[in-house]
Amino acid sequence: KNKDSLILQNLPKNHISHYDLNKLTVTPDALVNKEEVLILTPMSKFVPEYWANLNKLSYDHNLITLGFILPRTKEGDHALKSLESAIKKTQSNQGKFKKITILRQDSNSLESQLEKDRHALKVQKERRSMMALARNSLVFSTMSPATSWVLWLDADIIESPQTLLQDLMAHDKPVISANVYQRYVDDKTKQESIRPYDFNNWVESEEGLKIAAGLKDDEIVVEGYAEMATYRPLMAHYYDANGDVSTEMALDGVGGGAVLVKADVHRDGAMFPSFPFYHLIETEGFAKMAKRLGYDVFGLPNYLVYHFNE
Amino acid sequence: KNKDSLILQNLPKNHISHYDLNKLTVTPDALVNKEEVLILTPMSKFVPEYWANLNKLSYDHNLITLGFILPRTKEGDHALKSLESAIKKTQSNQGKFKKITILRQDSNSLESQLEKDRHALKVQKERRSMMALARNSLVFSTMSPATSWVLWLDADIIESPQTLLQDLMAHDKPVISANVYQRYVDDKTKQESIRPYDFNNWVESEEGLKIAAGLKDDEIVVEGYAEMATYRPLMAHYYDANGDVSTEMALDGVGGGAVLVKADVHRDGAMFPSFPFYHLIETEGFAKMAKRLGYDVFGLPNYLVYHFNE
Ligand SMILES: Nc1nc2c(ncn2[C@@H]2O[C@H](COP(=O)(O)OP(=O)(O)O)[C@@H](O)[C@H]2O)c(=O)[nH]1
Ligand SMILES: Nc1nc2c(ncn2[C@@H]2O[C@H](COP(=O)(O)OP(=O)(O)O)[C@@H](O)[C@H]2O)c(=O)[nH]1
Ligand SMILES: [Mn+2]
Ligand SMILES: [Mn+2]
Repeated sequence: KNKDSLILQNLPKNHISHYDLNKLTVTPDALVNKEEVLILTPMSKFVPEYWANLNKLSYDHNLITLGFILPRTKEGDHALKSLESAIKKTQSNQGKFKKITILRQDSNSLESQLEKDRHALKVQKERRSMMALARNSLVFSTMSPATSWVLWLDADIIESPQTLLQDLMAHDKPVISANVYQRYVDDKTKQESIRPYDFNNWVESEEGLKIAAGLKDDEIVVEGYAEMATYRPLMAHYYDANGDVSTEMALDGVGGGAVLVKADVHRDGAMFPSFPFYHLIETEGFAKMAKRLGYDVFGLPNYLVYHFNE
Repeated sequence: KNKDSLILQNLPKNHISHYDLNKLTVTPDALVNKEEVLILTPMSKFVPEYWANLNKLSYDHNLITLGFILPRTKEGDHALKSLESAIKKTQSNQGKFKKITILRQDSNSLESQLEKDRHALKVQKERRSMMALARNSLVFSTMSPATSWVLWLDADIIESPQTLLQDLMAHDKPVISANVYQRYVDDKTKQESIRPYDFNNWVESEEGLKIAAGLKDDEIVVEGYAEMATYRPLMAHYYDANGDVSTEMALDGVGGGAVLVKADVHRDGAMFPSFPFYHLIETEGFAKMAKRLGYDVFGLPNYLVYHFNE
């Protein structure tokens, strides 16, 4: 398969575009093959370090399209202003992105977004179901026939290797998730340290399946809560500072922090269920759906990206 | 809600587009509000009468984008040629469409497409699962943030009222399906007559649910087969030649012949499952998914469109 053989005729006068999906390559040699990447970010807050990190990505920005969806809250209005002025700067410089689409959400959002509020178990179902709708609106509205890869990158991922795209692509997997950690200062020792942040990258367990089997149709399992001990192996706990960064781990659930998806996985229909799908929703339900579509899902326990610390 | 208030700034120099999904209208006054329609057609054969009928639609063609997906078979090659030359003619005339995208499928297709072959119960699961993938590729790759409505129109629907879009829109429903009939000449009487064609527009029955409950996880119910008598009320049988054409009927399953969908239903995540979803796949699974997303599904038993007769 060679990108050169992609029939891509844009006839502006007649407004006809031809795309042969079979000739659209999705390979570890993405950059050489000039494969297009769509980076999608639901954004309730604009974090300058996220923007700086995004701009430092070393994949050819001419091949990168950005898509954002912001909530209709005051927080969203504020984020939009900051995002717009940041974009203005970037797009007038070298290294500007191919195209940027900004969507304002039509669905509801929760107002309070403090870390402790949004993590309360009882608000998780409603909150994550709304996040699922936002993610779906974003991918359904922005993916083009020329998109080879979709990177889901949360707006509060503030640090990653510059080669994030190439590194994840090199694994040539349908879905692959980085391990999301957080930097913090230890209260007692005053030492800078790191700790796991995202617990949605997991391997299904017998206990998890047992819990799911005992649930009513409309109930969900959410990972990372003591109230619902699944004993699922969590990728967050498999990080080994001395291990090989390219170690792969098969997963059954993923988070949305930094996940690279082959566009064909979405094209085949993989979306983020806002309703319980095998008792899972949002990114965890997405992983299950990718698997139902016949795709394998992986994570990189030793490949860290960092979440903002409020 | 007024289309005029839609923030839609295309800044070609910076390649930034803004869309406020909340200000995107989807109303019975679609034409007045200049709402954009995406007409999607999976096409294994090019039927000239389909093309003629499509071109006669009285909705403003400047607001209509067309999307096609063709299989990678010889039949598909042939259909592509005919489609391309038909498009060339149309797009150089008045009444040309806003934009046309043609996709070639990367997934497999069944070679034999005779009516009796494709309707055999045992090939239905594989065939319709492939159709689901094709439909998903099409909608995921072509929907834009400005799309208000999606009309799924099969390539062998050869006759409909010119006001098809306006008529369906007037009902203001999330999903609404026309009744697909077929013209034929009665063998005995030699009289021209009509008969029901599409049995995928149905209302769930107790018997249907019972059959589903007895199935293994990966088995499906497909409608219209004596081998699997669901006793579901089929919209095809509710046609009343003397009845009101605007009579509505709540449905649980739909076919893909001529179905109008509010774009937000897809944006929320409704796709065509290629795997058993509540033991349903493709368009029937789509209806179930729309319902799980909280949308109602309707049909118009007395509003006929006609399927090609091989
Ligand atoms: N569009 C949209 N984005 C949101 C909303 N809430 C959070 N986000 C973004 O979605 C991503 C995940 O949300 P976050 O609150 O960080 O989740 P957590 O880190 O898992 O607790 C981040 O990029 C947020 O900025 C919302 O209501 N609408
Ligand atoms: N892209 C694509 N379209 C197909 C394929 N098979 C059928 N179609 C189209 O999909 C629609 C439904 O298929 P059809 O064979 O008419 O189904 P039936 O009328 O329900 O028996 C029609 O528009 C076909 O032209 C396929 O393998 N690939
Ligand atoms: Mn976060
Ligand atoms: Mn047909």
